[in-house]
Amino acid sequence: MVDYFNGRIFLQPNEIPKDWVNILPDLPSSMTPLINPMDGKPAPPEMAFAIFPKECVMQEVSQEPRVPIPKMLREIFASTYRPSPLHRALRLEKELGIEGDDIKIFYKNESLSPTGSHKPNTAITQAYYAKKEGTKELVTETGAGQWGSGLAYGCNLFNLKCTVYMVRASFFQKPGRKILMRSFNADVHASPSKLTESGNSFLERDPEHPGSLGIAISEALEHSMRSDIIKYSLGSVVNFVLLHQTIIGQETKIQLAKVGIEEPDILIGCMGGGSNFAGLMIPFAIDKLNGKSPNMEIIGVEPRACPSVCKGDYRWDYGDSSMKGPIVKMHTLGHSFIPSPIHAGGLRYHGMAPIISILHNNRVINATMHHQTAVIGAGIQFAKAEGILPAPEAAHAVKEAIDQALIAKENNEKKVILFNLSGHGFFDLLAYKEYMTGNLKDYELPTQEIQKTLASEEMPVIDESQF
Amino acid sequence: MVDYFNGRIFLQPNEIPKDWVNILPDLPSSMTPLINPMDGKPAPPEMAFAIFPKECVMQEVSQEPRVPIPKMLREIFASTYRPSPLHRALRLEKELGIEGDDIKIFYKNESLSPTGSHKPNTAITQAYYAKKEGTKELVTETGAGQWGSGLAYGCNLFNLKCTVYMVRASFFQKPGRKILMRSFNADVHASPSKLTESGNSFLERDPEHPGSLGIAISEALEHSMRSDIIKYSLGSVVNFVLLHQTIIGQETKIQLAKVGIEEPDILIGCMGGGSNFAGLMIPFAIDKLNGKSPNMEIIGVEPRACPSVCKGDYRWDYGDSSMKGPIVKMHTLGHSFIPSPIHAGGLRYHGMAPIISILHNNRVINATMHHQTAVIGAGIQFAKAEGILPAPEAAHAVKEAIDQALIAKENNEKKVILFNLSGHGFFDLLAYKEYMTGNLKDYELPTQEIQKTLASEEMPVIDESQF
Repeated sequence: MVDYFNGRIFLQPNEIPKDWVNILPDLPSSMTPLINPMDGKPAPPEMAFAIFPKECVMQEVSQEPRVPIPKMLREIFASTYRPSPLHRALRLEKELGIEGDDIKIFYKNESLSPTGSHKPNTAITQAYYAKKEGTKELVTETGAGQWGSGLAYGCNLFNLKCTVYMVRASFFQKPGRKILMRSFNADVHASPSKLTESGNSFLERDPEHPGSLGIAISEALEHSMRSDIIKYSLGSVVNFVLLHQTIIGQETKIQLAKVGIEEPDILIGCMGGGSNFAGLMIPFAIDKLNGKSPNMEIIGVEPRACPSVCKGDYRWDYGDSSMKGPIVKMHTLGHSFIPSPIHAGGLRYHGMAPIISILHNNRVINATMHHQTAVIGAGIQFAKAEGILPAPEAAHAVKEAIDQALIAKENNEKKVILFNLSGHGFFDLLAYKEYMTGNLKDYELPTQEIQKTLASEEMPVIDESQF
Repeated sequence: MVDYFNGRIFLQPNEIPKDWVNILPDLPSSMTPLINPMDGKPAPPEMAFAIFPKECVMQEVSQEPRVPIPKMLREIFASTYRPSPLHRALRLEKELGIEGDDIKIFYKNESLSPTGSHKPNTAITQAYYAKKEGTKELVTETGAGQWGSGLAYGCNLFNLKCTVYMVRASFFQKPGRKILMRSFNADVHASPSKLTESGNSFLERDPEHPGSLGIAISEALEHSMRSDIIKYSLGSVVNFVLLHQTIIGQETKIQLAKVGIEEPDILIGCMGGGSNFAGLMIPFAIDKLNGKSPNMEIIGVEPRACPSVCKGDYRWDYGDSSMKGPIVKMHTLGHSFIPSPIHAGGLRYHGMAPIISILHNNRVINATMHHQTAVIGAGIQFAKAEGILPAPEAAHAVKEAIDQALIAKENNEKKVILFNLSGHGFFDLLAYKEYMTGNLKDYELPTQEIQKTLASEEMPVIDESQF
């Protein structure tokens, strides 16, 4: 019989990692700067300082291989939800017919945080720095609300005001996370709102405008510009957010060592903007870049409805659809790309984190994609086996992990497969209901149509010789 | 500054208690038997064996002070969600102005289980025994779905079929937990259903009958009678369920010892049928009964809308409203009592566990009650301070803990206050929304009306000289 006592690997609060790890100094090609959309030049630090907490701006360009996690932050993690457990998926292995020790499936469980995902790892951190620097308010955008509720939670810990512009369609259709944000004291507005010029301009055209993440970003940015004591907060894509998430991979390494595993063979995460995937894999990717485990496969999983890396171009593009935010070099489907309404709202972003884009270009990581029906099916299979209902985003990683395990079984290979369970699905039950009643739809744009959109967009032209 | 590293007290999986503790041999007055409603006599073991797993029936009447937790069960707890953390509510203390070490508030966090409450503690256990005894299916009733989802989870772990009769009003108004149960493979039916005679008889009278817990119990019992390989499962009230929940209090004792506390001064839990409250307090109540900490206060908290202990009679009554299930001596508001539609669905039961009733009669424990507006207000205060949104049931314990802390502060007393956070509120966000929008109503029946109902009911007359 399987020894279920080994099914969950715990760490003590005093084992929380003391550093985040920074991949910038190890990148195989150099990081591109954020570009000011007004003049096409690298955004000067003072511009970034006006938008983000200062410490985050410094981290965005830091070349230090390790960045210390402040003691107070480590204490807060210890008193709330970290370290998170690493599970061996023993029951899933049994279900897949791979009992024994040839093929092992592990998952890092980020679903136990107070808002049910990995988002508080950076939300608390950004709120901590903002508070320290005298900021009184953080403002952000949110789609379905995973990030918004994470930031509401983080700000509340430090008595910072939190303002969230929430995509109008979600604001009314998914009230759950809105209520959660408000219980954490946040001001939540349906976007487009009447509170900003950009919001008003969209409402004038259509008083019932359903909103979009791009519009909400524009509103949040405009809101943040009003005062020196308001800063803007981002939940993914940029380097400092990915840095904060490396606590996930750092803990995972310690946990694997406790069961005698140095490196997994296959590392998997879902990617929207890229933060949970990067958080898990960066510490391992650095090893791979330094020649330690050259055969380790690192796989990012996208929805077929929004395949930024799998089908997008690597080019300069606007981070938001209103073309007001910074310009970024990344994999993108184009800033005017409107993804189909899949349930994994957190993966509906047109671009991808520059760090992930660079790693993919240099074949350090791979990308793959799945349809949501297969993904939610894998989510149910996982729930039945492991007892945790994954968020639709996280179910993308589950699907790929199951596929990889079955391939290894077919080929009689020994593999250690590890994926990030980035969040639970308690707020996404509709996806499961639609699956069970046969009403879940799949979406995929033909590649040539994606290319047509990209070709038709007025993309910024950046003179790369300037940096 | 507060040392937040001490804010959460962890146990390792190998520290899971090896025994449940049984209060029956220590009770100050003897336990009354379950009575067969057909003849008014104590239900013979063979009758109970036909309904419940055999091992549970043995535990129901066991006089052993400690009952070993089977190794396999301990392994399953270890590989899923136990031990659960004990938190010091440092931020709540700060918020209440009781910083320092004179008044300490702790809470045991049962909200991290896969279904978000303490229910799996007994669900997994009952499924384990059922499986071992060759049972193929467990059937039960559920209101809002906390218990149903717990049992669905437990059965799924052992590949047992699970059938749940869910109160029709909740079935349609609260789809979330229904979907969760179905992802764990359970068959969920709206009750009254056409699948049973009792269900049909209610539907004939009213095809749109909203259902009740009493009707759902009748349907589940009828369903369980159909075959020897189907057993009925209960989520509260009876002795063996309370026994299984003592793992909560057993862990709490070990955790308190780690921070140098032998016994809390005040122990608090909410009570519907009584299982989460009993699970926390029984190990401490045994100490109190044995003279170890005579001044410890143990407080059960009821909703004012359903105050079985605070305002009910201690008498023989039917456990279900259809008068088909066993007759129990307990605090009751009468089997025809229909509680007002408060959000704490798990506290809307007309009776109370016999063990708790006896402890209350003997002044080992106290009972108190609160209105739901005050309760949900305390829940939000707790969420803002501690970052966890409590279930409306658990918020009753939060409210009382806050009140007790403020009383101690007023009186300059030193107190260690500890309560059970029995579940999270992610499936109960409507309660919080109504509170925030000022739409939450309070309900309370005048005592004389409760007495009038009790007097009007045809209560069973039991000859106590027979046992």
